Amino acid sequence: MTVSSPVKPVTQLYRARQGEITPQMARVAEKEHVTGAFIRDEVAQGRLVIPANIGHGNLDPAGIGEGVTCKINTNIGGSPIRSSAEEELRKLELALALGSDAVMDLTVGPYIRDIRRTLLSRCPAPLGTVPVYEAIEQVDNPEDLTPDLIFSVIENQAKDGVDFMTVHAGLLRAHVPMAVNRLAGIVSRGGSLMARWMVCHHKENPLYTDFDRLLDICRRYDVTLSLGDGLRPGALADASDEAQFAELKTLGELVLRCREADVQVMVEGPGHVPFDQIAMNMQKEKEWCHGAPFYILGPIVTDIAPGYDHITSAIGATMGAFSGAAMLCYVTPREHLGLPNLEDVRQGVVAYKIAAHAADVARHRPGARDRDDRLSAARAAFRWDDVFNLSIDPQRARMMHEESHVRKEDIRKEFCSMCGEKHCAVKMSRSVRERLKDEG
Amino acid sequence: MTVSSPVKPVTQLYRARQGEITPQMARVAEKEHVTGAFIRDEVAQGRLVIPANIGHGNLDPAGIGEGVTCKINTNIGGSPIRSSAEEELRKLELALALGSDAVMDLTVGPYIRDIRRTLLSRCPAPLGTVPVYEAIEQVDNPEDLTPDLIFSVIENQAKDGVDFMTVHAGLLRAHVPMAVNRLAGIVSRGGSLMARWMVCHHKENPLYTDFDRLLDICRRYDVTLSLGDGLRPGALADASDEAQFAELKTLGELVLRCREADVQVMVEGPGHVPFDQIAMNMQKEKEWCHGAPFYILGPIVTDIAPGYDHITSAIGATMGAFSGAAMLCYVTPREHLGLPNLEDVRQGVVAYKIAAHAADVARHRPGARDRDDRLSAARAAFRWDDVFNLSIDPQRARMMHEESHVRKEDIRKEFCSMCGEKHCAVKMSRSVRERLKDEG
Repeated sequence: MTVSSPVKPVTQLYRARQGEITPQMARVAEKEHVTGAFIRDEVAQGRLVIPANIGHGNLDPAGIGEGVTCKINTNIGGSPIRSSAEEELRKLELALALGSDAVMDLTVGPYIRDIRRTLLSRCPAPLGTVPVYEAIEQVDNPEDLTPDLIFSVIENQAKDGVDFMTVHAGLLRAHVPMAVNRLAGIVSRGGSLMARWMVCHHKENPLYTDFDRLLDICRRYDVTLSLGDGLRPGALADASDEAQFAELKTLGELVLRCREADVQVMVEGPGHVPFDQIAMNMQKEKEWCHGAPFYILGPIVTDIAPGYDHITSAIGATMGAFSGAAMLCYVTPREHLGLPNLEDVRQGVVAYKIAAHAADVARHRPGARDRDDRLSAARAAFRWDDVFNLSIDPQRARMMHEESHVRKEDIRKEFCSMCGEKHCAVKMSRSVRERLKDEG
Repeated sequence: MTVSSPVKPVTQLYRARQGEITPQMARVAEKEHVTGAFIRDEVAQGRLVIPANIGHGNLDPAGIGEGVTCKINTNIGGSPIRSSAEEELRKLELALALGSDAVMDLTVGPYIRDIRRTLLSRCPAPLGTVPVYEAIEQVDNPEDLTPDLIFSVIENQAKDGVDFMTVHAGLLRAHVPMAVNRLAGIVSRGGSLMARWMVCHHKENPLYTDFDRLLDICRRYDVTLSLGDGLRPGALADASDEAQFAELKTLGELVLRCREADVQVMVEGPGHVPFDQIAMNMQKEKEWCHGAPFYILGPIVTDIAPGYDHITSAIGATMGAFSGAAMLCYVTPREHLGLPNLEDVRQGVVAYKIAAHAADVARHRPGARDRDDRLSAARAAFRWDDVFNLSIDPQRARMMHEESHVRKEDIRKEFCSMCGEKHCAVKMSRSVRERLKDEG
């Protein structure tokens, strides 16, 4: 135990290890249809985290781990070029309405603290940040960052009630030369900042050298650490390379230090990864990071589809979740091109709800297919309103059905505009069944 | 050899078996960067088909088989409720511009023949149909169909130059009771028609009993048969069931009969299939259907996302192609809700170009990743126009970048509206590389 703070930890991990089933664990158990004891044991082993800052008053806790349903995270936040607190609030509301399990505020620019506080007050889902984005606002250049500044931002964000924080603590000075000559270099904002700092100061990453300061804050507020992969590949060509895996090994080391300090921890993952390397990547994380929940971004399975990266990445995310990822960070169609607008957020969240759910079904999680079966039964019976209401995005499904009929009176009839009444297979199939039934 | 026709076959299969490298094979070899002899041998073994009706004058042949790059097919065609020849032509042009490898005209309704002929005259890609859709237009009820009517439609379509035809010849009378009590019953238009006919007449499927008549037509025009899966699952709950696999076994039997008659053949596949069952489905087809190219629809990996089934199915299609499928039939966002419009076609084609390409990369097909690497290099150097031009959908990528900037002068600069100039990781990463270089 290297942490010096005399304060008794308040973390879910600490309490689980004491044998307690906290209200947060009980609520997660209820949502997942499992026992509180199961959740407690998963938390105690570090296989499941419940990001739940003691100061996030309106939180409805969620569990993130391979033992429960796969979760999705929605990134929102403005940039200096675009957006406002009001617009980001609309994105938050939409993401929550569509079923996002967690939200990260990635705002950069001068209004970062105001936007975060506004979002936190309206967000019952666990909310995450990347604190270095706020620290960098207070200096002119990355090299002007100081450890004191970084940790004071982290402490303030913890006080505000942030449930999980991405820190690029595993990106070491020795890793930087491995990454800069890649096809796409370092594509993580936080990662590139820390790399710049280390190269300018000829010093090790302060988040790594002063990791105990971080742990001390986290255990006092129960901030869950999300160990960022600053060297995630930003192109297929860079996937699974020396730089990526060197950092992953360091993250594994930090996982153990978090656990020693009773701090909840998950690990972030790639990035751009060819489809055939995804399962291997998940396997390596589980092994090297001691079963910590894996929180992955995509992965994107081809670089050639800007404008459609919600799809390139939902493909990779499904494979990732099927192979063991616990939470999927969404990607929108505007990735690589600009800041997502409200429609981009909608497309991204739905794509990831699909990926997470498809993986839950494929992993035979209890009851996962029930909603599919109910929707398909409604479809076979032409109960259109049930079809819409059981959909991930009822509003869009309803609109697409209605607008494709030329005649208003055809809407919600026993056919659709795809085949028309005479050619409807569903209708025809029913007539066959009835005929067979009549004949005994 | 059961075919009675004395006419010498003109098919690519027959000619490959004679040792010939036809102009069509040579063209496919050129496009695939392999030798003509390789293509000829793949065709001779029935592992690759080149749908190339002798009457399709403007055809630029494409090869469909596991030994070459994965292909995608775009379904177009109007219904009695919606669309016109003019609108379908616009869909054709868009699909071809986005790189669709094959096109099926699935028009139903009175103008079916006119639309087909118009499309054929403008379509350098192989064009397919489902002939029973035209036959059914000429009668009031499915049970009024006669074998003579069906075969005369097939012969006329062959004369028109149709390159491949879906026939539901493997759906036998004995299979119908297995399918009607499923959650979603029979969801194939052609399949439900043939089931209705068999149940009303108490007779076996005429496409099966008179399969030799079909083979006789195909070998005279070199129509490639696409053996339809009339019992494909229309819900996750129905996937991999008795009905689906009973039909697949019959399709395997018909594959051998096609090969005996020198007729090119591929096999169609599901449908709605949970992600974990996809590889197994591909394996069964290869085994039971003797390595015939597998042409799959999706598969859709969850039923709960109407409005987004281009995504649910692109996920399954990637896994399918990775596991051996040769061609992917696209699905649009409007699947299950209505007839797709032009924007739906765009979304569907791009989603499937992504799936096919991601699988080509994952299977390490020679050169498959080159375009990804070129695009990523352009991205790292802020060569925005190269990024757009190397994209699957350059127009959409360009538009998304441009519209997300508030200030026109920011467009195509060394940052984007996601992070703004100060927070751009790509820029920061470059500065790190330069600093390290300066220091040696």
